[in-house]
Amino acid sequence: MGPHVATRLTDSAVYGHLWSTPELVALFDEPAWLQAWLDVLAALAAAQAELGIIPGEAADQVAAHAKVEHLDLDFVAAETRRTAHSTLGLIHGLQRILPEPAREYVYYGATVQDLTDTWFGLVMRDVGRLVRRDVARAHATLLALAAAHRDTVMAGRTHGQPGAPITFGYKAATWADELGRQLERLDQGGRRWSVGQLAGAVGVLGFFGERGLELRRRFCARLGLADPGLSWTSTRDRVGEFGTVLALTAGTLARIGTEVYELQRPEIGELDEAPRATTVGSITMPHKRNPETSEHLDTLARVARAAAGVLVEGLVSGHERDGRSWKAEWFALPEVAQATGTAAALAADLVAGLVVHADRMRTNLGPAAGSERVLAELSARLGKHRAQELMQAALAGGGDLVAALAAAGAATAEEVADWAARPAVDTAGAMVDAVVARGTP
Amino acid sequence: MGPHVATRLTDSAVYGHLWSTPELVALFDEPAWLQAWLDVLAALAAAQAELGIIPGEAADQVAAHAKVEHLDLDFVAAETRRTAHSTLGLIHGLQRILPEPAREYVYYGATVQDLTDTWFGLVMRDVGRLVRRDVARAHATLLALAAAHRDTVMAGRTHGQPGAPITFGYKAATWADELGRQLERLDQGGRRWSVGQLAGAVGVLGFFGERGLELRRRFCARLGLADPGLSWTSTRDRVGEFGTVLALTAGTLARIGTEVYELQRPEIGELDEAPRATTVGSITMPHKRNPETSEHLDTLARVARAAAGVLVEGLVSGHERDGRSWKAEWFALPEVAQATGTAAALAADLVAGLVVHADRMRTNLGPAAGSERVLAELSARLGKHRAQELMQAALAGGGDLVAALAAAGAATAEEVADWAARPAVDTAGAMVDAVVARGTP
Amino acid sequence: MGPHVATRLTDSAVYGHLWSTPELVALFDEPAWLQAWLDVLAALAAAQAELGIIPGEAADQVAAHAKVEHLDLDFVAAETRRTAHSTLGLIHGLQRILPEPAREYVYYGATVQDLTDTWFGLVMRDVGRLVRRDVARAHATLLALAAAHRDTVMAGRTHGQPGAPITFGYKAATWADELGRQLERLDQGGRRWSVGQLAGAVGVLGFFGERGLELRRRFCARLGLADPGLSWTSTRDRVGEFGTVLALTAGTLARIGTEVYELQRPEIGELDEAPRATTVGSITMPHKRNPETSEHLDTLARVARAAAGVLVEGLVSGHERDGRSWKAEWFALPEVAQATGTAAALAADLVAGLVVHADRMRTNLGPAAGSERVLAELSARLGKHRAQELMQAALAGGGDLVAALAAAGAATAEEVADWAARPAVDTAGAMVDAVVARGTP
Amino acid sequence: MGPHVATRLTDSAVYGHLWSTPELVALFDEPAWLQAWLDVLAALAAAQAELGIIPGEAADQVAAHAKVEHLDLDFVAAETRRTAHSTLGLIHGLQRILPEPAREYVYYGATVQDLTDTWFGLVMRDVGRLVRRDVARAHATLLALAAAHRDTVMAGRTHGQPGAPITFGYKAATWADELGRQLERLDQGGRRWSVGQLAGAVGVLGFFGERGLELRRRFCARLGLADPGLSWTSTRDRVGEFGTVLALTAGTLARIGTEVYELQRPEIGELDEAPRATTVGSITMPHKRNPETSEHLDTLARVARAAAGVLVEGLVSGHERDGRSWKAEWFALPEVAQATGTAAALAADLVAGLVVHADRMRTNLGPAAGSERVLAELSARLGKHRAQELMQAALAGGGDLVAALAAAGAATAEEVADWAARPAVDTAGAMVDAVVARGTP
Repeated sequence: MGPHVATRLTDSAVYGHLWSTPELVALFDEPAWLQAWLDVLAALAAAQAELGIIPGEAADQVAAHAKVEHLDLDFVAAETRRTAHSTLGLIHGLQRILPEPAREYVYYGATVQDLTDTWFGLVMRDVGRLVRRDVARAHATLLALAAAHRDTVMAGRTHGQPGAPITFGYKAATWADELGRQLERLDQGGRRWSVGQLAGAVGVLGFFGERGLELRRRFCARLGLADPGLSWTSTRDRVGEFGTVLALTAGTLARIGTEVYELQRPEIGELDEAPRATTVGSITMPHKRNPETSEHLDTLARVARAAAGVLVEGLVSGHERDGRSWKAEWFALPEVAQATGTAAALAADLVAGLVVHADRMRTNLGPAAGSERVLAELSARLGKHRAQELMQAALAGGGDLVAALAAAGAATAEEVADWAARPAVDTAGAMVDAVVARGTP
Repeated sequence: MGPHVATRLTDSAVYGHLWSTPELVALFDEPAWLQAWLDVLAALAAAQAELGIIPGEAADQVAAHAKVEHLDLDFVAAETRRTAHSTLGLIHGLQRILPEPAREYVYYGATVQDLTDTWFGLVMRDVGRLVRRDVARAHATLLALAAAHRDTVMAGRTHGQPGAPITFGYKAATWADELGRQLERLDQGGRRWSVGQLAGAVGVLGFFGERGLELRRRFCARLGLADPGLSWTSTRDRVGEFGTVLALTAGTLARIGTEVYELQRPEIGELDEAPRATTVGSITMPHKRNPETSEHLDTLARVARAAAGVLVEGLVSGHERDGRSWKAEWFALPEVAQATGTAAALAADLVAGLVVHADRMRTNLGPAAGSERVLAELSARLGKHRAQELMQAALAGGGDLVAALAAAGAATAEEVADWAARPAVDTAGAMVDAVVARGTP
Repeated sequence: MGPHVATRLTDSAVYGHLWSTPELVALFDEPAWLQAWLDVLAALAAAQAELGIIPGEAADQVAAHAKVEHLDLDFVAAETRRTAHSTLGLIHGLQRILPEPAREYVYYGATVQDLTDTWFGLVMRDVGRLVRRDVARAHATLLALAAAHRDTVMAGRTHGQPGAPITFGYKAATWADELGRQLERLDQGGRRWSVGQLAGAVGVLGFFGERGLELRRRFCARLGLADPGLSWTSTRDRVGEFGTVLALTAGTLARIGTEVYELQRPEIGELDEAPRATTVGSITMPHKRNPETSEHLDTLARVARAAAGVLVEGLVSGHERDGRSWKAEWFALPEVAQATGTAAALAADLVAGLVVHADRMRTNLGPAAGSERVLAELSARLGKHRAQELMQAALAGGGDLVAALAAAGAATAEEVADWAARPAVDTAGAMVDAVVARGTP
Repeated sequence: MGPHVATRLTDSAVYGHLWSTPELVALFDEPAWLQAWLDVLAALAAAQAELGIIPGEAADQVAAHAKVEHLDLDFVAAETRRTAHSTLGLIHGLQRILPEPAREYVYYGATVQDLTDTWFGLVMRDVGRLVRRDVARAHATLLALAAAHRDTVMAGRTHGQPGAPITFGYKAATWADELGRQLERLDQGGRRWSVGQLAGAVGVLGFFGERGLELRRRFCARLGLADPGLSWTSTRDRVGEFGTVLALTAGTLARIGTEVYELQRPEIGELDEAPRATTVGSITMPHKRNPETSEHLDTLARVARAAAGVLVEGLVSGHERDGRSWKAEWFALPEVAQATGTAAALAADLVAGLVVHADRMRTNLGPAAGSERVLAELSARLGKHRAQELMQAALAGGGDLVAALAAAGAATAEEVADWAARPAVDTAGAMVDAVVARGTP
């Protein structure tokens, strides 16, 4: 097909920064993953040499020469296409750069999924850690925001309509609380998905005879991965879980983005993304300040969900190796990883720079400030359903609550004013305190 | 709209048994969930009475009278439509059947999500347990199958093509191993999703003042649910996780079904679903024996995935209550629960009745029996890549391996025959032993 | 499993009206589809009698007796479960209510998909027409709104931020324009999906010999369906297209809902759903007016998308009948049909009752009223990029545009005021006129 | 972020050929789309010059200098990141390579979606045509196969089990028939989605005043695109339709792949992918012949479905420009296009090289050869349900049908043998003839 650059806008030189981060590129870029594959082969050779399966010298030569910068990628690509085989191109390419004695002993007894799945184990481990780090950073920032705005009253909104009061600290705490559970899932899942693969042709390591399991143990240990216990060539639940935990995490980040996006509307004006000196909002409408990052978190969550869906579908594998599932993972795993990894990095920055307009929050709350306390006080006097009916009747058609309650003999104007001045957010503060006290795991 | 029966084939009197089980119906059927909602209201009233928020007598009356058989469902439905409010119909219906003093104190300070989300907590807990029980049953059966067929050789298949040998015990162990991790996920997720909800209008329990948190604690405890720590009206990660863990579980069950479906093809004939005396395979083709259950596991997994996708999408909520997410859950949660719950029950029965045709397995393996051992032995002599090239050349065009190897001086006919007689499945047995030794959690 | 009511909240007596309509219930309710199936059997018998395949008397008896009210549904259900066969329960149930001579001739040579797929053809035709009718109703209303508000200026919003002016008529025209293309897709797709099925056991109508095709032609014609030309037991593109066209349509309706939802925020206040006298917005926050319908359109679109996804997945069928695909359609087709059908009915009502606050639109536009005209005029004087830089510099930090432009010698205060007073929406009007002129197809 | 190569395996130098084709790369590769964008800008400038909006000389300079090979991509990328604006980097990069007089007139009055959406229109048109061409090629091949194998009997299979006879020609005809409807959808959709975009800041082309519509008309005509009639910045149904039609098409291709994959199992052996001289099936199991292409069609369909799902979700846009939808399209549109385009090319080759083993088809049919004719003949004698019961009883437990029927006095051995020798596939041939007669549109 000839060399090309990048047919995905997500990999574009111009736009790639919206869809990945330097750290993720360092994991997924073609030279990076090729080197990772070569490192996997070197670890395999080293473990095989330890067990006397191949000569120690061959293992040393693989370790010394298996460097991506020596590979003739055009040759590898051409051989891959010529043989229509997933790894034979790479093997032939490797054999060219290895000294003669090592050529027989590279990729010895392994098959394509040993390479690709072990690499999956490595990137699931590493991406899981990157996402965990950035989500934890966002979590810690949100705890600080929650504490700082423990008593900053604002309108709670349901169905998009401002209603009874909450505090911004409470809102930030709900974001943190949800992210905290994503951290748990990343930790619990990470213990399952950070594994290597050494399965051989059909999973039972037949080529290695009885040394197979010991070889796998040493191979995985050299790479800092857990031993899977059992081949997983058609057992894709770990990959599926990785996808869903990331998509769930991206969902929470998109929820935060969505709220910022909405609350940054100038008609509401309660939050703002941190302004950046060099950002240009709109060249045709220079007065605008766009919530670009917040909005993009939603975009990334859509990508993460779609890719995760492919991974979940992949669990329904057939027999001992099923290219339908496993090659679809080649598409989907890097997507969900980069979408969520990028979202986590963006979100951590977003919340760190968030501008909170406490004054607008108080203003927007307006007459709803007292709603729940008024209802509570009236309920204590009249019963709740009667209180509601009275309030409903009073407010229908934009009526005057104070006058109506006075007319009904339910409360004096002074009482209503007093209740409205003290929004019923005591419990919000207590919940914030509890979330903050738990800290970031 | 008038009374109707069931517009979903999944709820059909005729076909419903393919899409649910009696236990699941007992959770999700309209009278059942209405009673569950009433029980939630009774628990709320009881907790409120304990704290002096409502009279003890009112709580007792709610407990005594809030029975679904007393409710006038037509009235409830009509009021729901009249008010276009999610719970006002139910409240008015309840007030009709409660003694006068209790009428003011039912649903006191609660809002719709307190009811629906707490019910979600109950069903997520209960469905999680049902699925866990049936998956554990399948898991235990599979361990027994793995042990019994530890050394039953059969062809491993990759890309649908029979290749090197495995054992059926190994295959069963990979199924069990994957289900074992689903049990872990059900347990870990269950600790997160078995929570109640008491949030009030916008999440901060303003109506109850400083007694809110204590009230929530007691309310949840009465229902056997954990306290959520923080309102989760727009924090939907627990529901999303419930969906994805169930969809992943359904995926593993569908994988088992897919394998049985394929291996039951008469041209392969290695497995059979248990015959049922009264089953009629095909009325137009009476000689056929259809793998109905195996096939249906794949169907159910599709439903589970689609519904779980809706739940994951629901994480991107806005503000304090977002009907777009939350009402979509009303559709999706019962679907993923019933699809996966049904699949788990069916799969546990399927594996319990599985007929294993060890003879066909051995026959189908055929000349591939020795493949990996031949390759291993030749590799030790010639180097692996040379061995592969030799074998590839020999077998191209259906050549005779024995003659070719002899001609090349690589091995004698006796050696090749000996290798082929001892399939290289030692490691398969060792992996089976390890999986069996771990047992069912 | 015993009789139950409805395990889907979407089929609930209390909440079902949110998820279906009386017309859709009349298509999908269990007695309705059973009767439809019986009518299909009667049409088949009649066509067979015409061709002398069965006695005319038998066909008459089927037509006369095959009534759902005579069926013993408990027996049908029990036989379905006993035989684990999709239609044998129904056949045995039918044979009980038919006179002896007809018993041999009901369901003569047909198989389950002949029944279920022909019913699919009927409901795809009928649901397609219902959706078309309601979408056309919404379309016509939107054309009237577009014409009425051709020159009602309001802020165009990008990324949630108000920017340059548009007119509400233009916005309504974009909704209508999109719905117009959905009408085209419904019409074009409807010609493909309104077909019957008569395939026999494996698709080639072997049972009927050379009369098969003539029988199918007459059978389809009796039901008002097109002849499919070829059996489609594993050819599911029509069902997939039905799903995607409906999901696309639901997406457009949800877009309209989303816009109303956002513009009904009191902080924006530009649109309102029609108030209903008996609606109760919030019992705990009586002052709120919730955009319930608008919000629900988004929920329904999620359901439609998820169900359509299952139908698209179903195209990947295997062999001549594949229960994995086809039974998943049993779940998904009624869902996408009811979700989209309900959305179309709700949306047609929504736009018919829409309250437009032209005053708030003008107010919210504020200083952005002149933005595009100012830019255009300055660009003519200074070049566009210089004009933009000047405006950007002037507006940075909330600066005063008029003063800045005057200071730069770019425009006088009078000129800027004049430009701002004449929002640049001429083309909006022209586009509205073109859309209105095309009318509703 | 620095230059990188390709973080998607789908864009890999080594594996990219599985996920794209040279023709698709020529549309989507970064230099290609950048040049396409520049061509769009040149067309805009030319149309503007025609209308006197910009100087003719400026338009000529844009046409002459706007070449991707002159662009400093590092500068463009850096400016894009610095400004956080989608197109400002490109504009600044362009201004550097344009002569001074043209700098003010490039990208004159346009905004980012004018560029990206018009490019979408171009690639939707071109990809639609490529897919159409390759699907039509597959269609024509399948018609030839259907005609050639009009009477090649084989087992029809339902639920994976061989049953009554069909012909391979019939099967090929069902594939062709389904592809034929995909061609219709591509044609009908192509007329909707091959449009340009010129919308300006918020859709109403305010910057251009009353010349806006004439400018759009000329701009689109220059690019060979239809005029959209109305701005579609938030009207994404065309993109959604493009995605779903492609995903449906990919589904049909995957269905063909799935059938080949299954029928190539050596235990069945009825079809084979064309062998390729240089292909290496398995390096560890040299005797295997993998259905790589067939399998990969399923993988590609999963990718296409996932990406199409993102496009359908994108219809729910808000206001006049919604980056959440539109940027997600940047990810999804190239994916669905390349996945389906690659699948169409692969499938056309697959069916062109398909090896049909008519002998194995006949052998595998075995005793089922007569099933439908036997049933038909017996039904005529005994009534259908009695005939079925008799056959069912006879075949239960692997009984001997001939003996049983003779014993029951239902048919002689000679009759049964005669019926079995003449499989009931007359109608299959007639359906094949009809499909072939329609030809490829």
